[in-house]
Order: sequence, then C-alpha cells, then structure tokens
Amino acid sequence: MTKPRNPDFAADVAASFASQGALRGIGAVLETVEPGRCVVRVPYADAVTQHHGFFHGGVIGMVADVAGGYAAMTLCEPGWQVLTVEYKINFIAPAAGSAIVATGHVVRAGRALIVTRMEVAALDAQGRARVCAVAQQTIMALPAERFAG
Amino acid sequence: MTKPRNPDFAADVAASFASQGALRGIGAVLETVEPGRCVVRVPYADAVTQHHGFFHGGVIGMVADVAGGYAAMTLCEPGWQVLTVEYKINFIAPAAGSAIVATGHVVRAGRALIVTRMEVAALDAQGRARVCAVAQQTIMALPAERFAG
Amino acid sequence: MTKPRNPDFAADVAASFASQGALRGIGAVLETVEPGRCVVRVPYADAVTQHHGFFHGGVIGMVADVAGGYAAMTLCEPGWQVLTVEYKINFIAPAAGSAIVATGHVVRAGRALIVTRMEVAALDAQGRARVCAVAQQTIMALPAERFAG
Amino acid sequence: MTKPRNPDFAADVAASFASQGALRGIGAVLETVEPGRCVVRVPYADAVTQHHGFFHGGVIGMVADVAGGYAAMTLCEPGWQVLTVEYKINFIAPAAGSAIVATGHVVRAGRALIVTRMEVAALDAQGRARVCAVAQQTIMALPAERFAG
Repeated sequence: MTKPRNPDFAADVAASFASQGALRGIGAVLETVEPGRCVVRVPYADAVTQHHGFFHGGVIGMVADVAGGYAAMTLCEPGWQVLTVEYKINFIAPAAGSAIVATGHVVRAGRALIVTRMEVAALDAQGRARVCAVAQQTIMALPAERFAG
Repeated sequence: MTKPRNPDFAADVAASFASQGALRGIGAVLETVEPGRCVVRVPYADAVTQHHGFFHGGVIGMVADVAGGYAAMTLCEPGWQVLTVEYKINFIAPAAGSAIVATGHVVRAGRALIVTRMEVAALDAQGRARVCAVAQQTIMALPAERFAG
Repeated sequence: MTKPRNPDFAADVAASFASQGALRGIGAVLETVEPGRCVVRVPYADAVTQHHGFFHGGVIGMVADVAGGYAAMTLCEPGWQVLTVEYKINFIAPAAGSAIVATGHVVRAGRALIVTRMEVAALDAQGRARVCAVAQQTIMALPAERFAG
Repeated sequence: MTKPRNPDFAADVAASFASQGALRGIGAVLETVEPGRCVVRVPYADAVTQHHGFFHGGVIGMVADVAGGYAAMTLCEPGWQVLTVEYKINFIAPAAGSAIVATGHVVRAGRALIVTRMEVAALDAQGRARVCAVAQQTIMALPAERFAG
C-alpha cells in the first residue's frame, strides 16, 4: 500500500492496543501490523460467547472495529491518533471454533478520514478459517493534542 | 407499539440475556423490556475502557446490538429467536461517565425481518445523559428449531 | 436545534439544490429548510420507478441522502459546503403512492463532521404517509475553497 | 463462485433490468452478468450530475445498489426475485469522468438472505478507472408469488 508516514507505526499501534482494558477483557491479541493492514485474534473463552456458545456478535463487532482502526493508524502521521466515526457489519455465518481472527485493511487513506474494510473469520480445531462477518468503517485521524477523547 | 405475540416475552428475553457470557464479561444489566423496546446498562469498569479511560467503542457497539436485538425479540412469536443480520453505528461523542445506557426500539416488525434503531447515552456522576452513539440494525427472527446458530 | 451560523442558510441550500442535474432528473422539490432539518419531495413519474411500478430504491436512497445533506448544511458556517462521507439505508415497506417525502434531521453537528438521520415516507392518494425507509448518514463540512469536489 | 440454480439467470436479470424506469432515467447499461457478479455502467449526462458537474452521490448509490442486487439474483432459484433489505456506502473520491462503473459481487449466498459488496469506479477520458465508492448490502430473495413489492 502507501509508504507509512510514521516509521514507528508498529510500536505505536502495539502501545495503543496494550492500553485498552476492553481488549484485555476479551483476551484480544495483536497478531500482525503492516502498512494499511492489521490482524487481531481472540481465542475462545466464556467471556466472548453468546447463548449458544458461539462467539458473541458484539465481540465480533468490537474486534472488527479494532482491526480496522489500527489498520488506519498505520498510515497516519507520527503522533496522530484514530477515532471510529462509524462502522457497519454484516454477520454471514455462525462464529464457531477455537478463535476468531479479524483482518482490517485500508481502502482509502485521506489525511483526516480513512475508509477501511474488515473480514472476521472463525478458526476451527484444524485451523481452517471460515468468514463469519464483513464490515466497512470510517476512521478520523487527528493530532494527539486535539484528541479530547 | 404492536401487541406482543409472545405473552412471556419479558421472561424469555431475560433468560436469553442471562445465558450470554459476553454480557457477563462487560457487566451488562437488562434494565427495561417492553413491547418493541429494550434498555441495557453497563456500569464503568476497567474491562469496558479504551486507552483514554472512556467506554470502548466496541463495548458501545455490543450493547447497542444487544438492546436492538432484544427489542426485536419482544415482538416475535413464542419460541422464536433472533439473529443480528447487520448493524451500523455512528459514534457522536466520547462516552465518559459512570455508566452507558443503550435503548433499542423497533422501527418495523416484519415476521422474519425486524428493523430497529438504537441510542447509547453516557451518564455522568449526576445521572445526566449525553447521547454518544446512534445505530440502525436488521434482525432476523426464526423458530428455535431452525436456529442452527 | 442549534442556532444557525449562516443567516442565509435557506437561500444557500435552495441555490445548491437548484444546481443539481440529478435532482432535476427525478423531479425532486425542496419542500422545507429549517435549522437542522430538510424535507425533499419527489412526485411519481416513470423516471423514478422500479420493475413493479413502485418508487425505485435507488431514488429513495438518493432523496434520503440529499435530505440529510441539506439538513446538515443548514448548520454550517457561511460559504461552507457539504460532502456525504457515507450513509446506510434500510427499506422497510414498498414505496407505493403519488409521491415520496424524505425528511433529514441533524443528530449531532460537529464543525467538520455532522451525523444525520432520515425517514422516507410514501404518500398515498389521500395524502397519508407510510414510512418506507430509514437511514443514517455522516456528512463532512468544509470551506468552499477546499471543496475540490 | 457457486453454480447458479437458475440456468436462465442472465436473461432473467436482463429482463428485470430493462423494466426499471429509474435505470432508463439515468441511462444505466447492464454490462456483465456472471454467477455472483454484475457490472452496471452509467455514461456521463446532465441527469446524473451534482452541483460541481461530478456524478451525483445519489446516482452512485443507486447504481451500487442495482449492481449488488443483480449479482445476488444470479444465484437465486428460478423465478425468485430480489429485494434490497439495506445497504451502506462510503464515498471515497470525487466521481469525475466519462462514465461510472459499478461492480457487485456476492460475499455470502444464503437461500433467503444474500450479502454483497460493491465498488464503483469513475472512468476518465483514457478509460482509466478510479474507485470512488465502496458499499456493502443485504438482499432478500423470495419467490415471485410472495413478492408483494
């Protein structure tokens, strides 16, 4: 994709990821961080299930949101942060298996607005992936000092 | 709204809610269940935060999804269950405060497809609400025996 | 809603509306322009139909988009213009009748990003309205000189 | 993709396309119909423009919706029809040029619900394509006799 403007993008994404309590709460692991792309994995656990024992749609949405947001952050200026403006997600198959893996990639990187797409796959015991959700997202990038939160 | 087809809708929603590990994980509480409407509350805790200490967008999305889905379930046939087909959420203000409250209401209840809208508000220490997200959702209802998951 | 920053908002919206060839193509009429709210009407004609003679979903989406965008523009700085970042629309009933009427209103007006919601109703021969679509949208406002298009 | 269930899918899509007044109104042309994929082109004309002379976002949304819907229809049972449940579209670049081309493809084809993704590209005078919008859609398929509209 584009050459990243921030040479430390991978370390900055990892530091931001590590500081999020909600990601610890669901046991999310940052698996890959490349320019314009980010992969997040969540292993199966009680805290991520719905009433049939599958991964909860809300968790799938959360991980999709995070994977897209950090994919966007890899292409931002040094010191800039990202906010999710909005996202939309379709659930296309039950998320059964030992883990889910969300991949976000940047479709269009403007300076202030970044559009991403995400796929979430469930991995079965043999490690075979089955896509369970697809999503599309708008991210706003802004300098950390304007990031009131 | 419409007269519910399932006289036990409130008990059925509560039982389904209680069986979801992911909702326990974020400390979600079912606050109100009425025909075509559902309110879910999440108190502040480390497991629901992002890196600035606000409520995490992924948690906000999860609670919005759940509030809309159970609002839909209140209008379903007895024994039917609900699946989220898709949702879309806009984040419009930082979610700071002592709790978030998601309200889902049914816009259109077909037999198989139900469309809902949701608002999520953050409550400050004085209990004042500020809307932090708005969402729109499509739910599929189906008999429990066809609910492969 | 908010006090408009542009005292000429109504004239500016009307001038922008009049300059759009696509709106002439579907016979769209600007019906109401108030701070944070805009109503657009499209009378029935062959050029707005789908294969069953109802209003075409694409036309419904177009009018929803326009009503939301101009609702947003009413709250912008003088001389600023609006761009649709994205929108999402659910079709909830067939759009049969003599006209459709789209109402857009602003949910949250930031300086650069504005979030709106829209309803589109179909009017029958007696003028009774039935909601046929609901939508949610993100608008970007920017000074005309930066509006490369 | 999947083997189509309807051997006449291409003729059926073409017949449905030809019967839509709104598509004639914008000069849309059905360019490609394959199992799980559909391409629709709209040449530049006054009836498809916004106020800066670019293709109108509403037209882009309409064409995206149509391309996704007919991509879905290629995988339906013979005699079944498609309805758009909802779609979401992001506009990522101004749509300037001699034509726009929308490509829809099926991500997941259930019997009743089909999820699609779409890209819309603008073609410049040399025929070079630039993606100007990306979208994601939910389609419902149903037998023609139940298609009240």
